Amino acid sequence: MVRAAVRSFYSWAGCAIGGSDHEVVEIAVKALKPFFGPPTASVLGHKGGLLADAQHVALLNGIASHVHDYDDTHPDTIIHPTGPVASALLAAGEFQTRCNGVQVPGKEFLVALVAGIEVECKLGLAVWPQHYDVGWHITSTTGSIGAAVAVSRMPKLPREKIVQSIGVAATQVVGLREMFGSHTKGLHPGRAAQAGLMAALLAKEGYTSSESSLEAKRGWANVVGVAKGESSIQEDLGKWTGSSGPSETGLPNLTANGVSNGRWEVLRDSSKPYPCGIVIRPIIDACEQIHRDMEKEGLQVDEIERVHARVHPLVLELTGNREPRDGLQAKFSVYHGGACGLVFGKATPRQYEDGVVQDERVIAVRDGIQAEADDSLGADETSIVVEFQRGARWHKHVQHAVGSMQVPLDEQRLQDKFVDQCEKVLGAGVSMASDGCKLL
Amino acid sequence: MVRAAVRSFYSWAGCAIGGSDHEVVEIAVKALKPFFGPPTASVLGHKGGLLADAQHVALLNGIASHVHDYDDTHPDTIIHPTGPVASALLAAGEFQTRCNGVQVPGKEFLVALVAGIEVECKLGLAVWPQHYDVGWHITSTTGSIGAAVAVSRMPKLPREKIVQSIGVAATQVVGLREMFGSHTKGLHPGRAAQAGLMAALLAKEGYTSSESSLEAKRGWANVVGVAKGESSIQEDLGKWTGSSGPSETGLPNLTANGVSNGRWEVLRDSSKPYPCGIVIRPIIDACEQIHRDMEKEGLQVDEIERVHARVHPLVLELTGNREPRDGLQAKFSVYHGGACGLVFGKATPRQYEDGVVQDERVIAVRDGIQAEADDSLGADETSIVVEFQRGARWHKHVQHAVGSMQVPLDEQRLQDKFVDQCEKVLGAGVSMASDGCKLL
Repeated sequence: MVRAAVRSFYSWAGCAIGGSDHEVVEIAVKALKPFFGPPTASVLGHKGGLLADAQHVALLNGIASHVHDYDDTHPDTIIHPTGPVASALLAAGEFQTRCNGVQVPGKEFLVALVAGIEVECKLGLAVWPQHYDVGWHITSTTGSIGAAVAVSRMPKLPREKIVQSIGVAATQVVGLREMFGSHTKGLHPGRAAQAGLMAALLAKEGYTSSESSLEAKRGWANVVGVAKGESSIQEDLGKWTGSSGPSETGLPNLTANGVSNGRWEVLRDSSKPYPCGIVIRPIIDACEQIHRDMEKEGLQVDEIERVHARVHPLVLELTGNREPRDGLQAKFSVYHGGACGLVFGKATPRQYEDGVVQDERVIAVRDGIQAEADDSLGADETSIVVEFQRGARWHKHVQHAVGSMQVPLDEQRLQDKFVDQCEKVLGAGVSMASDGCKLL
Repeated sequence: MVRAAVRSFYSWAGCAIGGSDHEVVEIAVKALKPFFGPPTASVLGHKGGLLADAQHVALLNGIASHVHDYDDTHPDTIIHPTGPVASALLAAGEFQTRCNGVQVPGKEFLVALVAGIEVECKLGLAVWPQHYDVGWHITSTTGSIGAAVAVSRMPKLPREKIVQSIGVAATQVVGLREMFGSHTKGLHPGRAAQAGLMAALLAKEGYTSSESSLEAKRGWANVVGVAKGESSIQEDLGKWTGSSGPSETGLPNLTANGVSNGRWEVLRDSSKPYPCGIVIRPIIDACEQIHRDMEKEGLQVDEIERVHARVHPLVLELTGNREPRDGLQAKFSVYHGGACGLVFGKATPRQYEDGVVQDERVIAVRDGIQAEADDSLGADETSIVVEFQRGARWHKHVQHAVGSMQVPLDEQRLQDKFVDQCEKVLGAGVSMASDGCKLL
């Protein structure tokens, strides 16, 4: 449990740093700086440091963490749960320290983080998929509520106040899917974080809302989606073990299979290996493996004659763009993903910069990739044949792509992802990166 | 048109001042003060003055304007349109002046105000009543969008940027009716104002959203309600007269009946005479008239033997509370409303303070009032018979209650309401009150 929570937080921090120089963040900083309050929390990433009031920090870190579509994902609801929760929680914690001299113990921080993530994902499960289908961005609609619970839990507000904070957050429903493809998609988790933080602040001082804000006839679940009924929200909630409450670590224990005391969603939170559509994962994974094999054999990409991939039909339906023109379009091109795997052995936000998408060497490899739908394959499966000029013919089969529940990112990949995001923004040799990774 | 806009603004300002010492505002100030940015705008009302950054000011003035349920109402949608729009606009205008030295001409301010109010009410008409029935607080759900348009219109941002600001605002849907009866109801128009202001600030600096955020398949209207189709949003929009655009005053002209060039919703915006449920209006109106007649005749309320009122059936259904225990309950008691009319000759927020509701003299009169449903009467109609101890028997019939479209508050009542709200908070003899009223 601790490991899962730290992984989610670590993954989030990398994304928030890696997204901090994106124009979606830069515009927001420019527009809102005249309104920044006392500098009591840190906008992550910015070289030379950027402090602001905790409410704006929650907003900005939340935006940054999502702009590359690279943040952690709860696969059952496609919620990116850590963004809204951690953005609010870290800002609130730093505010506590800088302003009130209160050091928040790491354990309390993690318990609050887990509480927020569980709330988001359980709410998501209660309204999925109708809620998403109708047009809500489920990450932010559940995110404000998760953030409110997390921030309220950190100083251990009494139960009544946590309940009131849930209501204040629930009444602020952020995120229409109509905004996908625009700057405003990134705004969603940030605004959810800010809304949740504000809800917790108001509830702490005595604001009232509703004690049944989620399940009432005109409550959140019924208004924003076709709820499956009240019980679904509480169904299969993870429980503290033992009759004496939390374990001695102050953190919930969990039985090995997560069954006997409910299901913890944070254990299902997965880190994205690539900043692009999830169905492209298997082909990039396979091509990365081929890249490594080629290095061992001393082969170059310009020696590739032809690449033929069999993929799940959904891959071509969703990401069949043969000629992406910029980074945003490339996120929906299985061909660009495959080319990045072959040419660079990786697909990070750098490989989705416009310059790379328009690079002739990349285009040449991309044009040589053929993909064919094969409905006998799973959505995270692919089978690739590479033919080289001098007659070699390699075959690579990926049963479950990296980043799936079956093949989560290992510690090294998670660290590589983190360091890569930090270096992109802060320059090479960021010492905090490897230090931070000792947590894992 | 100018007169209508000034009336709406004036009415809003009185409510924002009159609500500024309410605990819903006080808690918010206490909770959020540590995050206030540079003092570039004024929280209305506060003795000695309270400045904050414009975003927080938009929030706080918006809350204050709604806490007494005393703000202006667009009867066709029950939107309180001025709250979100004026709260954002005044804060933005003051920020422009204090921070950038830009004086905003009154005409531009009013054009922006009208633009915001029209947007809110037209959107409201497009989704009314399903949107409200399902559980959305229509004042704030439309309010963020109206506020964004108003703030974007004041500096005359190009059309494209106003469109983007609409999207950023539309994706922040504030306000569940489930919060009615709690502090969070008051939060709604304030948060809508703040969200709309932020949307305009982001769009001004280049934030993109969606160009069809309202009417798209997964846009605002379809997601938050059973929309009546795209056309309904634009139906019957008020139009600038003449082919050369706005009139020489810089404000739209309007033909006398408002028909030949579309319908302007701001002309339908009405000021509430009493801070309570709308169906109680006729009985208070009648009892106020009786109070004045009694003063002329030298009669006292303790000489009243019995009061018998016939009212529309909805009155008893919604406001049949015979024994309200505090101010909040009294807002839903036709008996308390009638007693205030008879005893005080008025029903202002002061008559809804707990002490008045619990006052023995008021209770005695309240207990003597009988109300009987009569479905031959209109919702804003009542017929009252008062019997006095010495045999006198008076009859009073109100066809349309004050505050209705047929009997709007006259200038004197509007001014009395404004001055009363100011004096309640700032003390007697506030000179600005009568000066301000010259605008009308």
